[in-house]
Amino acid sequence: MSTSELLTGKGIEESYQRIHERIHRTPVLSSSAIDSMLGVRVCFKCENFQKVGAFKIRGATNAASLLSRDELTNGLATHSSGNHAQAVAMAARLAGVPAYIVMPSNSPAVKRAAVAGYGAVITESGPRIEDREETMKDVLAETGATFIHPYDDERVIAGQATAAYEFHRQAEGLDVLMAPVGGGGLVSGSCIATRAFSPGTALIGTEPAGADDAARSLAAGRRLTNTIVDTIADGLRTNLSDRTFSILREHLQEIITVTDEEIGSALRLIYERLKIVVEPSSAVPLAALIRERSRFSGKMVGIILTGGNVDLGSVDFSQWRAPAF
Amino acid sequence: MSTSELLTGKGIEESYQRIHERIHRTPVLSSSAIDSMLGVRVCFKCENFQKVGAFKIRGATNAASLLSRDELTNGLATHSSGNHAQAVAMAARLAGVPAYIVMPSNSPAVKRAAVAGYGAVITESGPRIEDREETMKDVLAETGATFIHPYDDERVIAGQATAAYEFHRQAEGLDVLMAPVGGGGLVSGSCIATRAFSPGTALIGTEPAGADDAARSLAAGRRLTNTIVDTIADGLRTNLSDRTFSILREHLQEIITVTDEEIGSALRLIYERLKIVVEPSSAVPLAALIRERSRFSGKMVGIILTGGNVDLGSVDFSQWRAPAF
Repeated sequence: MSTSELLTGKGIEESYQRIHERIHRTPVLSSSAIDSMLGVRVCFKCENFQKVGAFKIRGATNAASLLSRDELTNGLATHSSGNHAQAVAMAARLAGVPAYIVMPSNSPAVKRAAVAGYGAVITESGPRIEDREETMKDVLAETGATFIHPYDDERVIAGQATAAYEFHRQAEGLDVLMAPVGGGGLVSGSCIATRAFSPGTALIGTEPAGADDAARSLAAGRRLTNTIVDTIADGLRTNLSDRTFSILREHLQEIITVTDEEIGSALRLIYERLKIVVEPSSAVPLAALIRERSRFSGKMVGIILTGGNVDLGSVDFSQWRAPAF
Repeated sequence: MSTSELLTGKGIEESYQRIHERIHRTPVLSSSAIDSMLGVRVCFKCENFQKVGAFKIRGATNAASLLSRDELTNGLATHSSGNHAQAVAMAARLAGVPAYIVMPSNSPAVKRAAVAGYGAVITESGPRIEDREETMKDVLAETGATFIHPYDDERVIAGQATAAYEFHRQAEGLDVLMAPVGGGGLVSGSCIATRAFSPGTALIGTEPAGADDAARSLAAGRRLTNTIVDTIADGLRTNLSDRTFSILREHLQEIITVTDEEIGSALRLIYERLKIVVEPSSAVPLAALIRERSRFSGKMVGIILTGGNVDLGSVDFSQWRAPAF
């Protein structure tokens, strides 16, 4: 299958057929308390309940399924602060081949433990993107493993797209779909799935102010990168690639940025009202919706809760209050 | 309906018919990671997703539905550290009558806020059971409201019993059912429902060591009370009544007590693996199962997760580690 065919409605449907027996069909939840607080009908696609605790298993499984036996033989490799690492580790395990994962030294302990739990070989790098990439090169040279990029890969993007594909079938007629932007894999896939399967739905990206490369890139009309990264949303610290930037630029209505304080407040609201555990990155779209709620009054808004792998020992909920209206 | 008829299979079935349209049929979840850690197949009945965030709405709704118009006129009243308070407040609201709630001064803030949110009038009492009861008397004298006891009431017990009734239909063939013991309403109801609808299932109560009146009472063969109460399981600080003691004595296999450290560790395991938010009381049965797992090897064990109303700002997860096997 050529690249251009993967990133179409047909390519996403085929990706879904390829992976759906190996992933969970995650539930869509809502809360009448949140709806009446916001004056918005909000549907949450709960990828925190997904295998490995995050949507990332979709892309990794899709990519691994498209590899030849030769490409699989020496194992799979990636660099990731967490969820993609777990996803590749699990995909390799299912394929019966080794996994080599480069993790930055500031990865949450719970994510490192999970990656180790899937039997992957972990190599620690420095915290910056360049550090990861440098270490990754060494690991690939040593092992001959096949690299699966966290987001700059059309097989991965088509896999992530299956979350929105499923979501539109579970919650028909969404006026708006909101998702968090990290490297842009999920949002790119969501854009393409939504244009194909729910063309009336507007697409909005959401991003922490402390890692706002995508918002600045869209505003500037060219890809910019984060210099200093400072946010509790540890899954969203990466930069767009040229590929994801160009997809976002074509399809995304806008990107809303939010502060860590707004993220923490939304996080607490999700825990208190939905009674589910999500990681801080997952709270970014709700944080945006809370602040901008008047613009979405009466609408039906879908939010992808991207994952639930959070190091609870390092989260101090007492610093935030859930919003009260 | 007479008292003796309520606490039978038929009485529970009728209670279920009476209330089921006003409550949620909560899901039963499991985790392959927890199962393989413990060597036990564990099913969790998730009453944290119940209306008002706890099973208590079952008993309060059942009791309110059985009152005459005259008994309802001046409103409903109760004393409770939290979840029963919310339940009575919501039951009164649905019936269109006022609610008067006595809450001890050490109730979690999130529970006080929720009770106030349902429009109830809150009167604060001292932290001890006797303080609550004293204040309650004054409130009843002033208002003429009808008192709904948190657990020493057969209408309430029959309502709580519907959780186990539902559970046995969702997860057939449980070898063991475990639930936490506070005042004994849930466990009493679970005993009667289980004897009627799943007679092969063993019944085990679980209790914090810091509020172990039920374990000591069963051992002594007479009802004893807590003198000093010291546990993070804030929903389980109450004493059995004569009524619940006699039901537990007749039906319960045993009571396992656990330390707060064991509770905290099980709590963290639930958050990390099931990705759901529960209050510390809900983690008590899993804490017991973790320690005693070798006795339950290969069995199918059902656990009732009683509620999800937790003041996250006051929980420090860093003091516990989820168990690793």
